[in-house]
Amino acid sequence: MKVGVIMGSGSDWDVMRPAVETLEQFGIEVDKRVISAHRAPHALMEWVESAEERGLKVIIAGAGGAAHLAGVIAGLTHLPVIAVPVHSKLNGIDSLLSMVQMPSGIPVACVAIDGAKNAALLAVQMLALSDASLREQLIDFRTKQTEKVLATVI
Amino acid sequence: MKVGVIMGSGSDWDVMRPAVETLEQFGIEVDKRVISAHRAPHALMEWVESAEERGLKVIIAGAGGAAHLAGVIAGLTHLPVIAVPVHSKLNGIDSLLSMVQMPSGIPVACVAIDGAKNAALLAVQMLALSDASLREQLIDFRTKQTEKVLATVI
Amino acid sequence: MKVGVIMGSGSDWDVMRPAVETLEQFGIEVDKRVISAHRAPHALMEWVESAEERGLKVIIAGAGGAAHLAGVIAGLTHLPVIAVPVHSKLNGIDSLLSMVQMPSGIPVACVAIDGAKNAALLAVQMLALSDASLREQLIDFRTKQTEKVLATVI
Amino acid sequence: MKVGVIMGSGSDWDVMRPAVETLEQFGIEVDKRVISAHRAPHALMEWVESAEERGLKVIIAGAGGAAHLAGVIAGLTHLPVIAVPVHSKLNGIDSLLSMVQMPSGIPVACVAIDGAKNAALLAVQMLALSDASLREQLIDFRTKQTEKVLATVI
Amino acid sequence: MKVGVIMGSGSDWDVMRPAVETLEQFGIEVDKRVISAHRAPHALMEWVESAEERGLKVIIAGAGGAAHLAGVIAGLTHLPVIAVPVHSKLNGIDSLLSMVQMPSGIPVACVAIDGAKNAALLAVQMLALSDASLREQLIDFRTKQTEKVLATVI
Amino acid sequence: MKVGVIMGSGSDWDVMRPAVETLEQFGIEVDKRVISAHRAPHALMEWVESAEERGLKVIIAGAGGAAHLAGVIAGLTHLPVIAVPVHSKLNGIDSLLSMVQMPSGIPVACVAIDGAKNAALLAVQMLALSDASLREQLIDFRTKQTEKVLATVI
Amino acid sequence: MKVGVIMGSGSDWDVMRPAVETLEQFGIEVDKRVISAHRAPHALMEWVESAEERGLKVIIAGAGGAAHLAGVIAGLTHLPVIAVPVHSKLNGIDSLLSMVQMPSGIPVACVAIDGAKNAALLAVQMLALSDASLREQLIDFRTKQTEKVLATVI
Amino acid sequence: MKVGVIMGSGSDWDVMRPAVETLEQFGIEVDKRVISAHRAPHALMEWVESAEERGLKVIIAGAGGAAHLAGVIAGLTHLPVIAVPVHSKLNGIDSLLSMVQMPSGIPVACVAIDGAKNAALLAVQMLALSDASLREQLIDFRTKQTEKVLATVI
Repeated sequence: MKVGVIMGSGSDWDVMRPAVETLEQFGIEVDKRVISAHRAPHALMEWVESAEERGLKVIIAGAGGAAHLAGVIAGLTHLPVIAVPVHSKLNGIDSLLSMVQMPSGIPVACVAIDGAKNAALLAVQMLALSDASLREQLIDFRTKQTEKVLATVI
Repeated sequence: MKVGVIMGSGSDWDVMRPAVETLEQFGIEVDKRVISAHRAPHALMEWVESAEERGLKVIIAGAGGAAHLAGVIAGLTHLPVIAVPVHSKLNGIDSLLSMVQMPSGIPVACVAIDGAKNAALLAVQMLALSDASLREQLIDFRTKQTEKVLATVI
Repeated sequence: MKVGVIMGSGSDWDVMRPAVETLEQFGIEVDKRVISAHRAPHALMEWVESAEERGLKVIIAGAGGAAHLAGVIAGLTHLPVIAVPVHSKLNGIDSLLSMVQMPSGIPVACVAIDGAKNAALLAVQMLALSDASLREQLIDFRTKQTEKVLATVI
Repeated sequence: MKVGVIMGSGSDWDVMRPAVETLEQFGIEVDKRVISAHRAPHALMEWVESAEERGLKVIIAGAGGAAHLAGVIAGLTHLPVIAVPVHSKLNGIDSLLSMVQMPSGIPVACVAIDGAKNAALLAVQMLALSDASLREQLIDFRTKQTEKVLATVI
Repeated sequence: MKVGVIMGSGSDWDVMRPAVETLEQFGIEVDKRVISAHRAPHALMEWVESAEERGLKVIIAGAGGAAHLAGVIAGLTHLPVIAVPVHSKLNGIDSLLSMVQMPSGIPVACVAIDGAKNAALLAVQMLALSDASLREQLIDFRTKQTEKVLATVI
Repeated sequence: MKVGVIMGSGSDWDVMRPAVETLEQFGIEVDKRVISAHRAPHALMEWVESAEERGLKVIIAGAGGAAHLAGVIAGLTHLPVIAVPVHSKLNGIDSLLSMVQMPSGIPVACVAIDGAKNAALLAVQMLALSDASLREQLIDFRTKQTEKVLATVI
Repeated sequence: MKVGVIMGSGSDWDVMRPAVETLEQFGIEVDKRVISAHRAPHALMEWVESAEERGLKVIIAGAGGAAHLAGVIAGLTHLPVIAVPVHSKLNGIDSLLSMVQMPSGIPVACVAIDGAKNAALLAVQMLALSDASLREQLIDFRTKQTEKVLATVI
Repeated sequence: MKVGVIMGSGSDWDVMRPAVETLEQFGIEVDKRVISAHRAPHALMEWVESAEERGLKVIIAGAGGAAHLAGVIAGLTHLPVIAVPVHSKLNGIDSLLSMVQMPSGIPVACVAIDGAKNAALLAVQMLALSDASLREQLIDFRTKQTEKVLATVI
């Protein structure tokens, strides 16, 4: 069971790393890559169109500015695509709008600006729909998270 | 196999109807409801916390303004939650930001402003991960959609 | 006579501290807590629904991003709820819109981004409506504040 | 027990009317007026500074554009001031920011753009802090509101 | 000498028509098409990658919302690509940011929201760099335009 | 011949200082003060209403956030009022909108965010309308400014 | 004594008309023209550079979108220039920012979006600095305006 | 074959330098200058109107704030003008809107905020339309760029 984590530039790695770490924490194999939708469109097409046969179930895409990566991927696959808008000179509002405002017919699941960890959790939720053990892990993760926030001392 | 479609107000129905229609077009049973996160919080909690045992797999939530509905639901379930920001006095930018900027730990999958049809397609994509027949329907839907756009005459 | 000061995350404490300090300066007892609306919804519900019997008169809630905390609390109580939008990656415009754009029927009293001190003063104003000594303190505070600003040397 | 409802222009009346109607529905006497902060500053000062002795407990102020009305009033009284940003050529985002971003020391309680009904409910909440019968009315109002939203048929 | 005019949806035609009309007014042959970057990515790739051998010199692309069309085309060709952000639910600010904020290495020449006529004029300017007769036409067009604006009677 | 330079807080001084320096460079006497519109409204009213008899011709007002200072002053005098929006947590967009979006009947002359130097030059332009020597100084200032920018070496 | 009222396009006339009417109401002669900064730059330069000798004291410029008109004029004269941002596809926020964010050294006095009447009043204020009769008219205008707003019945 | 690179202030040089470097990398001669549209309008007019006879084919203009430079140049020439919005106190959103929202009839080709390198590449694309060797260089540049992004290791 694999999730793809792809980003438009090597400079997005600091933002996207928590997606990879969170997925691995749930025992999910990650296929991570840097492929720019604009600078390497053929490589991207190849990577996306072979995704299903390479075992990918969900694809997480992070990009900034005119962040077309998630939308382009969504046009090339029927797998769920999760978009992570990466902060930019405009604080990420351009990345967010470029990712979330998709036209009817080709959905993208957008999370918060720099929300890579949530992108991973969303992928886990999707996979847990048909994986009872992952579902248990998720419930356990959530319980611990609740305990942790309640234990905060100020 | 069921998907919940919930909205914060009866006035959101015009925007949310395409979600229900699209899901039904794919043969998916829909559990649709109006429950305001703010005006009926206990009813909402009950609806969400019994969702899994009522057979829901994915929840689609539409709301406008300070659109808390999707986020509140996401805090109460480990099922995937898809958010549809409904247009508002501020053109929906408030609805969008209220829905997409979720804190780390509780993901929501946000689609475009008024993007109810895409919310349904995203739910179908999630369910198709473990349902071969739905996967076929989805591929068929996408093929026809491509043919239709290419047939546009201007 | 008590005011609750609640925030969504321990990281909001630096912004919210002036609310607590200002309330204490007016001799008002403060019940302060970190409870995330999303990560600990049941604890939040319990805290809010027992607020009145615990002696709380007003609740001040600070949160950032998709800042649902104040709105969720307002849906669970008839006590006045004051919202403090905490600055975020988008400078707090997301926090502000998430807090202030509440639907008809469930009001929240929103102050400026990071305006925790004013949230406390607003709570004092509410309490002073039925407390002559607090009213005197408030008038005294305002007089000294005026003198201080007029004494500014540039 | 009286609440003041003041607006900057006669053209704000359509937006502000629900504030007056809601207050009257709770049996609260309303002192309503049109006084522009910019075009009639002395009349405004007089109205505000005599507010307390005229029996006002809370002041609700609605204005659009460079909406200074609520802030100016707040600088002239220690009574709680509730601000209603009225929609404008910029959809009310200018009115909202002009009202909510008050400097430290002079709080204003801001509600949603055109949120006059919520302004009234917030005033009721403040008054209910020391009025058991109003508190009962408020709880009753909320219960009926919940029932109404749950009865919505789509 | 040909210019391509492409748009993401048949609904963009009303906005894009002035581009075609202006080009034809300068005697430039137009190759116009509706191809969605998301709903028909392979057809788009084919259209773009054969553009040069089909005689296209410049490509004008119009789209709204998450307007990826121009950027995707720019990634597939070394011909100049002119982007026309089409108005949307957010007045076109999403379309504009999606089109103009391209990453370093793949330029797009963005014009105003709904600025299809200017897109055509920009294409004419590019072609006029190596076409003396077009240059004359352009100078003539500009002279008449100046005369027309100066003749405006108010 | 005097110009008033007033600001809402001592913290605005760093932004407003160039206004004072520029005016003094033109030999104009400056009456500078910190008076908050919200925290010292009576002192402000007194300062403004005696402005003309104290010899002030133009008033420059700088403030940030809900920047009401210039508008309040404009409501109290028929002298020209120049507004300087001071940068804020929202980069000054709140200060700008609070200052520039004045209602019909009470004008304010708004300059750029943090544009104190231009506020001074605008005041000089107003005074130069009836002062030939100031007019000469202004023309001289502009000539030198042009020479300086053209001498920039990159 | 004359004021120039210039606009970038004949379509701005509906917005700018109140400037002309207000000036005429004060007995000020108006020199009104349509000259586009972009489509007729030489005519604009000629009009501006002869403004002073034609008797103009103040110039009011209205434009929308990339509203360069006021800034270009300000670069060509030392007379005060008042800018009226005209509403646009982006509600005038583009016009406003294009006009108000002038660089240091070349001031423009910006009024509200579509604020043509206030532009005229601001010009009157400037002229009244050296014209006692105009000053009287202005005070009279303001008094009547105050009476009118206070007479509003709701 | 020459390209002009012009900027409104010496402080824009850090942003604009990559335009010059990229053009030189393609063997294109650059005519670079600092001329403010507002502070040196006559020098600008002279520079632009002699551009064609000095051998310029394309003009790249960078400016921030009320960034009129590119628009003013476009009004004075029929050569293609490329605009680079330079970041500002408002993150460059003012510069972007001032540059891109040009009126019908006078096009400007706008690139991303601080997108000087892309401005240069766009100029190269325009020139390559009639220069086979430049076309080869461009294809080579793009191939290497693709290889480089695909070689990124994370």
